Amino acid sequence: MKKLVAEFVGTAVLVLFGCGAAVLGGDSIGQTGIAFAFGLAIVAMAYGIGPVSGCHVNPAVSLGVFISGRMSAGEMIRYWIAQFAGALAGAAILAVIAGSTANLGQNGWGPGYLGEYALPAALIFEVVFTAIFVVVILGSTGKAAAAGFAGLAIGLTLTAIHLVGIQVTGVSVNPARSFGPALLAGGQALSQLWLFIVAPLAGGLLGALFFRFKLLED
Amino acid sequence: MKKLVAEFVGTAVLVLFGCGAAVLGGDSIGQTGIAFAFGLAIVAMAYGIGPVSGCHVNPAVSLGVFISGRMSAGEMIRYWIAQFAGALAGAAILAVIAGSTANLGQNGWGPGYLGEYALPAALIFEVVFTAIFVVVILGSTGKAAAAGFAGLAIGLTLTAIHLVGIQVTGVSVNPARSFGPALLAGGQALSQLWLFIVAPLAGGLLGALFFRFKLLED
Amino acid sequence: MKKLVAEFVGTAVLVLFGCGAAVLGGDSIGQTGIAFAFGLAIVAMAYGIGPVSGCHVNPAVSLGVFISGRMSAGEMIRYWIAQFAGALAGAAILAVIAGSTANLGQNGWGPGYLGEYALPAALIFEVVFTAIFVVVILGSTGKAAAAGFAGLAIGLTLTAIHLVGIQVTGVSVNPARSFGPALLAGGQALSQLWLFIVAPLAGGLLGALFFRFKLLED
Amino acid sequence: MKKLVAEFVGTAVLVLFGCGAAVLGGDSIGQTGIAFAFGLAIVAMAYGIGPVSGCHVNPAVSLGVFISGRMSAGEMIRYWIAQFAGALAGAAILAVIAGSTANLGQNGWGPGYLGEYALPAALIFEVVFTAIFVVVILGSTGKAAAAGFAGLAIGLTLTAIHLVGIQVTGVSVNPARSFGPALLAGGQALSQLWLFIVAPLAGGLLGALFFRFKLLED
Repeated sequence: MKKLVAEFVGTAVLVLFGCGAAVLGGDSIGQTGIAFAFGLAIVAMAYGIGPVSGCHVNPAVSLGVFISGRMSAGEMIRYWIAQFAGALAGAAILAVIAGSTANLGQNGWGPGYLGEYALPAALIFEVVFTAIFVVVILGSTGKAAAAGFAGLAIGLTLTAIHLVGIQVTGVSVNPARSFGPALLAGGQALSQLWLFIVAPLAGGLLGALFFRFKLLED
Repeated sequence: MKKLVAEFVGTAVLVLFGCGAAVLGGDSIGQTGIAFAFGLAIVAMAYGIGPVSGCHVNPAVSLGVFISGRMSAGEMIRYWIAQFAGALAGAAILAVIAGSTANLGQNGWGPGYLGEYALPAALIFEVVFTAIFVVVILGSTGKAAAAGFAGLAIGLTLTAIHLVGIQVTGVSVNPARSFGPALLAGGQALSQLWLFIVAPLAGGLLGALFFRFKLLED
Repeated sequence: MKKLVAEFVGTAVLVLFGCGAAVLGGDSIGQTGIAFAFGLAIVAMAYGIGPVSGCHVNPAVSLGVFISGRMSAGEMIRYWIAQFAGALAGAAILAVIAGSTANLGQNGWGPGYLGEYALPAALIFEVVFTAIFVVVILGSTGKAAAAGFAGLAIGLTLTAIHLVGIQVTGVSVNPARSFGPALLAGGQALSQLWLFIVAPLAGGLLGALFFRFKLLED
Repeated sequence: MKKLVAEFVGTAVLVLFGCGAAVLGGDSIGQTGIAFAFGLAIVAMAYGIGPVSGCHVNPAVSLGVFISGRMSAGEMIRYWIAQFAGALAGAAILAVIAGSTANLGQNGWGPGYLGEYALPAALIFEVVFTAIFVVVILGSTGKAAAAGFAGLAIGLTLTAIHLVGIQVTGVSVNPARSFGPALLAGGQALSQLWLFIVAPLAGGLLGALFFRFKLLED
């Protein structure tokens, strides 16, 4: 139960910090500031709740952990529920502060969305960079890893991913992070939500296969 | 006594760095630069004075530490006095360098203040993000936490909070940080000071309850 | 074999993150954002694949490790092949997302290239800063170094190098990072590629000599 | 001897990175980028050469270490010579890359210098912030400190100091860092150099007294 509280709180915090920076900070901090807010939210939670739940706060990460054999299917499903619920709660608190559900940092692609990248670019970006994200997570928390550093490494990796891809999709690499804002904002965010569930899960699977088949660890 | 010297110095440094960056750096560094100055002040003090006092440098943090059962009420009160005094000293040194008390990085809300958010948004922001801040502090310094990393995690969390909320309230999450500049600047900063004492303390209490009731630790 | 997979993946990730930030993020994140993307790619890979291969992801680094006596010539050659192949793979994936091979973050100098520095400035910059980079790598991974911190120190060093030198050469300090984009972009990037192979290798040799002759370690 | 090589190299690197970012990066990275270049240069050297010499790379820091009783006067003098020589070497290499000695990131104050602060503000800024810097250094390397973290804490503190004070003096807090560029640039930088020798040394002394008199450690 404690683990699910942690995943719920942690995913809410990720949305509050990352999407919050995009919505409330916006042009005052620029995309570099937004990229750091997303990554440092993971640093915050990795050390704040990591000792309890491992701080996945991301269904694609839990899938990767399951595929690599470090978590059961049942626990993965419970984590998923807490993560989606937490993301929704985070988006709701953000909507109250912002006073609107029109802009909650939702992901997207195509005409009118940031760099106006096409669907294939969005799809490839999300699959490839979620795979890299999961490789960093599984590698930095493996048996041979230096203890304690994973939270910094993983959070700063998420910052780097955002520096690359905010123009492309706003960066999901996390179905829950996309779900919360999309459900409240509706419209195009909701109709494009499928990609931000499918692609990160595919990427999480891809990244985890390197570990499942012992290509990147002993 | 050494602990109170440390809290006095540490809170002065937080104001000198964070508010100093806003006042002296200002547009030359942008809000992303200001956000890092606040957070890195905590990193500086966590490793510089943390071994002596634990580096609370924030009455809401000391309240959270007390509520979670890791500090006595008497020591909390002594910490509070040192923190408020230190923040005032830091603001005074900053006023001397800036050559004016008109702009000392004071917090606020409403018409004329940055993003011009209304009182309820300011209140909710300060309560929620102080609660998150205290969760990170109590979680990252708990028994199961990786030793040594708390200072980085806590400081970078404060950076992320500023990336989200400078537009909303200038970000307090710390009654002492608001008190020093407001006392010297007077005017609206002083008349709005109550919120930046009440809301962070309420948030610190809220965050600590997760630990008091063992919801986020064993 | 696992080590070569790791070097291949790691070098691809360095190009995807660093060059990706330049190409896809570009003006939206500025050169400070790009500098962090390059450096944090190293942080990501140091903790993600470092436990497997040591995370050189750079032929100049492998040369320095060989010169300092910590790696055989044969293994260095194998690392080089994996690194050049990985950089090419990373640049190819980036080209697919960007939809063009015209701009892949290629290095260069002279008229039309960023700060329009002349060849001697480009050459000196690359030699000196690769030497410094290799000094940090060999020093932070030596016997007397604090365990676990090297990945952060090395990655953040690469960020600092980019803050200094993007205007000068776009910053290589890594023959593989220059090779991937240049091979696909062709034109001037390809005709100037020689400098970004020669100068970083010379710098890597120079930096390693401090360790070979025990000037910077016991 | 090895220690003096390390201090020479380290101080040259500090100037090459910090002043280099100001001169070569300049407006392309902004003052936030410059602030990170200075701080990350310390991170680089703390882990790269710290195991050899302790990485003072700053005469005010060596003075503080001496005052706190952790270094002899003779060794301090030798460190000073290596530091001033290294800063000069770093500034010379930078001048070659930049193709001019007109702008080498020299410190200053008054009309025509950045924020145009007056002498008293410059003096107070340098004394106070060097004192804080030395408190962080002595505290984070003391007996009760978490091992390994000092390099990150100290470097990030220097970043924060630059975020606050680039507008005021360009930030010295280090007589050697001011000496190298001033000697080559001449003119006003040379005539104002006295302040950037006197004030940081006074600040270093002030910060060290907290430790000499056991006010901030056991």
